[in-house]
Amino acid sequence: MSLVLTSLCRTESTVCRHSTAFTRAFSSNTSKKRFRSSSHQETKQFRWKLAAAASGAVVGMVTYNYIQNKPDLTFLRKSVQAKSDPVYSSADVAQHADKQSGIWVTYQDSVYDITGFVESHPGGEKILMGAGGPIDAFWNMYAVHKTPEVLQILEQYRIGKLSRRDQKAINLNDPFANEPFRLPVLRINSQKPFNAEPPLEVLTDSFITPNELFYVRNHLPVPDFDLENFKLEVLVGGRKLALSVDEIKKKYKPVTITTTIQCAGNRRQEMSQYQNVKGLTWGACAIGTARWTGVRLRDILLDAGFDLNDNRFKHIQFNGNDKDITKSSYGGSIPKHKAMSIDGDVIIAYKMNGVDIPRDHGYPLRVIVPGYVGARNVKWLHQVVASDEESSSHWQRNDYKVFSPSTTFETADYKKAQSIQEMPVISAISTPAEGSKVESDDGVIEVKGYAWSGGGRDIIRVDVSADGGKTWKEANLVKDKPGADDSTHSWAWSLWNAEVEVTPGKKTEIVCKAIDSAYNCQPEFIGPIWNLRGFLTNAWHRISVEVEDDE
Amino acid sequence: MSLVLTSLCRTESTVCRHSTAFTRAFSSNTSKKRFRSSSHQETKQFRWKLAAAASGAVVGMVTYNYIQNKPDLTFLRKSVQAKSDPVYSSADVAQHADKQSGIWVTYQDSVYDITGFVESHPGGEKILMGAGGPIDAFWNMYAVHKTPEVLQILEQYRIGKLSRRDQKAINLNDPFANEPFRLPVLRINSQKPFNAEPPLEVLTDSFITPNELFYVRNHLPVPDFDLENFKLEVLVGGRKLALSVDEIKKKYKPVTITTTIQCAGNRRQEMSQYQNVKGLTWGACAIGTARWTGVRLRDILLDAGFDLNDNRFKHIQFNGNDKDITKSSYGGSIPKHKAMSIDGDVIIAYKMNGVDIPRDHGYPLRVIVPGYVGARNVKWLHQVVASDEESSSHWQRNDYKVFSPSTTFETADYKKAQSIQEMPVISAISTPAEGSKVESDDGVIEVKGYAWSGGGRDIIRVDVSADGGKTWKEANLVKDKPGADDSTHSWAWSLWNAEVEVTPGKKTEIVCKAIDSAYNCQPEFIGPIWNLRGFLTNAWHRISVEVEDDE
Repeated sequence: MSLVLTSLCRTESTVCRHSTAFTRAFSSNTSKKRFRSSSHQETKQFRWKLAAAASGAVVGMVTYNYIQNKPDLTFLRKSVQAKSDPVYSSADVAQHADKQSGIWVTYQDSVYDITGFVESHPGGEKILMGAGGPIDAFWNMYAVHKTPEVLQILEQYRIGKLSRRDQKAINLNDPFANEPFRLPVLRINSQKPFNAEPPLEVLTDSFITPNELFYVRNHLPVPDFDLENFKLEVLVGGRKLALSVDEIKKKYKPVTITTTIQCAGNRRQEMSQYQNVKGLTWGACAIGTARWTGVRLRDILLDAGFDLNDNRFKHIQFNGNDKDITKSSYGGSIPKHKAMSIDGDVIIAYKMNGVDIPRDHGYPLRVIVPGYVGARNVKWLHQVVASDEESSSHWQRNDYKVFSPSTTFETADYKKAQSIQEMPVISAISTPAEGSKVESDDGVIEVKGYAWSGGGRDIIRVDVSADGGKTWKEANLVKDKPGADDSTHSWAWSLWNAEVEVTPGKKTEIVCKAIDSAYNCQPEFIGPIWNLRGFLTNAWHRISVEVEDDE
Repeated sequence: MSLVLTSLCRTESTVCRHSTAFTRAFSSNTSKKRFRSSSHQETKQFRWKLAAAASGAVVGMVTYNYIQNKPDLTFLRKSVQAKSDPVYSSADVAQHADKQSGIWVTYQDSVYDITGFVESHPGGEKILMGAGGPIDAFWNMYAVHKTPEVLQILEQYRIGKLSRRDQKAINLNDPFANEPFRLPVLRINSQKPFNAEPPLEVLTDSFITPNELFYVRNHLPVPDFDLENFKLEVLVGGRKLALSVDEIKKKYKPVTITTTIQCAGNRRQEMSQYQNVKGLTWGACAIGTARWTGVRLRDILLDAGFDLNDNRFKHIQFNGNDKDITKSSYGGSIPKHKAMSIDGDVIIAYKMNGVDIPRDHGYPLRVIVPGYVGARNVKWLHQVVASDEESSSHWQRNDYKVFSPSTTFETADYKKAQSIQEMPVISAISTPAEGSKVESDDGVIEVKGYAWSGGGRDIIRVDVSADGGKTWKEANLVKDKPGADDSTHSWAWSLWNAEVEVTPGKKTEIVCKAIDSAYNCQPEFIGPIWNLRGFLTNAWHRISVEVEDDE
């Protein structure tokens, strides 16, 4: 059982642990019908586009929202137990708030004695924050607990009912009550916090990813925002600069940077299939490309008194306005040289593809760190701090790090491992879809996809194979990258296509691998890069299709 | 047969084509005795060090100089032919200098009618430069022709003798007559031009590679140098700056940059073993680390009038003072952003590890381009040119490019492929040596090696496996990187060591792979990165050892 505030460091892990089995069972039914449809590709793509366009009207589509706001526990409860239920008051529960007198909590209408579980809580002692009271608010925040599996475990510790009067007093305020509207076409990996990706079939239809189809990776609820009174806080040594969004727009030179942003967990599903990992089960679409308009972080920091020769500062930290239940915010940091380099192109953005940044993507301000992992592109930015050390945030220190395949949770040394910053080279096939039947009357099929590398390294070649990697065909890199901007490097992905020879009537494995401008290449297999948190799955992308003769 | 000036574009290729078979036959005898000795490691290392220290006194050691200056052709010549030899004068030969009258050439004391060969010359029409005259001077320059195989082919076209008087008139001046002294301990891959690497066992004994043990990769003869009259020429648009070495030292701020330089062909031997490639057969030691002192290229270019906002200039070209027979020099170029970026750390160096740069490494000036392929670190620098295009040099346009594994010499499109610039992540095991017997009384052996990545990306982890990659042990990265300098990035390699568990009495495969700070990793196998020129062999390094019980 996993209770109250299972420590921030386990949030994402827990989502995965509890949801993977469920998601898999689920995907073997409905999702396969959608994502691995055996109908012809073009019909499928058309359906997706229709769905995306008429998003508001898409009624009755499967939404994957399997974690409901108020899951009904009664189906789990034995009727015999219910009849003889002792009734406790909030005062009774409050008397059991330490190990000596036992740890009681309430959830909805029931009382639980979780003394026997506390020791094995994955989030450690933080579970005690809920001791002697209701955990509803915590679970509303950390909705990852709300899976049938966790609820079933909780039921094992049930000792009775909470008095009707006290039930009413519990504040069930939902921190996720004011989330923005999202397109139903998004494939949801976690509802609270919201994490979702677009369908692979539409992702590579345009170089720029429309805002509504851009993957969403939220660690906490989307914050409300009082633009009127908002000031961005910039701290450099003893000095403090406070800037409204309007002041930022007026005071510094605006620039537009086109960059691909990718979640470190992109393609985690494949790594999880190889061997179980902890983390959200992303497909190959936790990646997207947008044109961000804002001002250079360097300009703001210099204005705030940052001295390039001052070696006290090694890192620039960012804090978001999205807060957890303890009121501490999401945070991350990047090395000084990336932040202050003229060609680092780090900006504080206020526009995404020409419009105000949507709430899901960081309204009103977001740091854009081209070529770096998505996690450092901090959303809902409210504070920038020059520091001698990395952000102390959980997500900087105890997450977003990669260990060797032989490292376990017991041997993982988070202090020693380096934070993911610049990203390695990756690619994926978007068309045809995994498991689909494709038609070919001339023994040739078209394969499409994306390729990207971090650090401003361009993609110089994509190789595609229809025989599992024995022979390779060089793909065409789509040269059309619309819109000149102020980027000093190749921060954006390359879309590609290739015509490969296949044998009709046969199951065919199609494989792609990309090479970046430093001639780095993707690893062939997942095994040697497997890591317990399932980060950076950049092995060759492989899909199986059945080729049908069109004649 | 490969004759006169087989075009610069084939120089290195030809060395390999003709020498590989020979080298292999050779290494199966003598070299194996030295490099794959079954004696204990420590004894071997001692021997190497002794050899290095007492270099001058190493007499009678195998030198690999299989290409002699004046190979004796008589052993190839049929005696019956010799008796009835017609004698021709230079004037006779000169009358056969076009396809109509036939193409005759002379070499040493003989006359050859090579009309039937011209069409199939790998270097194309350039062979005609020797038509109607002696090819001795060309072959002295392109000594790669001087293999038994090429000489044997030439003999097939022999038609007679050159008159004694005309033999004397031929200028046999050897452009390699004034090469510097080199340690006999170096393993020579090609004598003319000189290409050699240190033994693997000593390479990783120090973070800084001693100048005398630093691999040498020369494309042409080492030039003589008239320091008195030398001026470095810097051309920016219509402006020209000319600087003596002393002026460079006085005018600009000196900086010291510690960087690893690696040849694109490092570890080519392994790729060649997988499937034949064209190029010098380098082991794993065409890599080394030195502290270079000089001045920033950026400072010189700005002084010469380079305007950072002038978008006419996209590349900075470098020309060396080493010249081929047509008097055109070795050249290369790098993109403007690398040259002009403050943290690109590109310098024009005059010192290597605290002393004047040795002749073999570029005396008096060499460009140092940290994190880039060795080929752009142009030696004997005499000219810097701001340009809108890459260097027109053969080595920039038609060499140092990588193709897909399925690309052949017939399908290779050099115009489309990107020049190698930044280098990918690589590592190698230096101890124990391949094929050696190692002792272990506790089931543990020590493994040592190097790891490096280009672009200033640090090595963050090295994984070592003693079961071919099933399980991994994280190596210790040697933190001792002596000497603070002006480097803005991690340009230098990481040395590492690890204790791995082995089973005495068994043949064991030891494998290493490195991960850089962008979490790029090495490919597992050579197959998917194989390329016809054998560049960038950065697959996992694998060695086989026999573990003996020490008790």
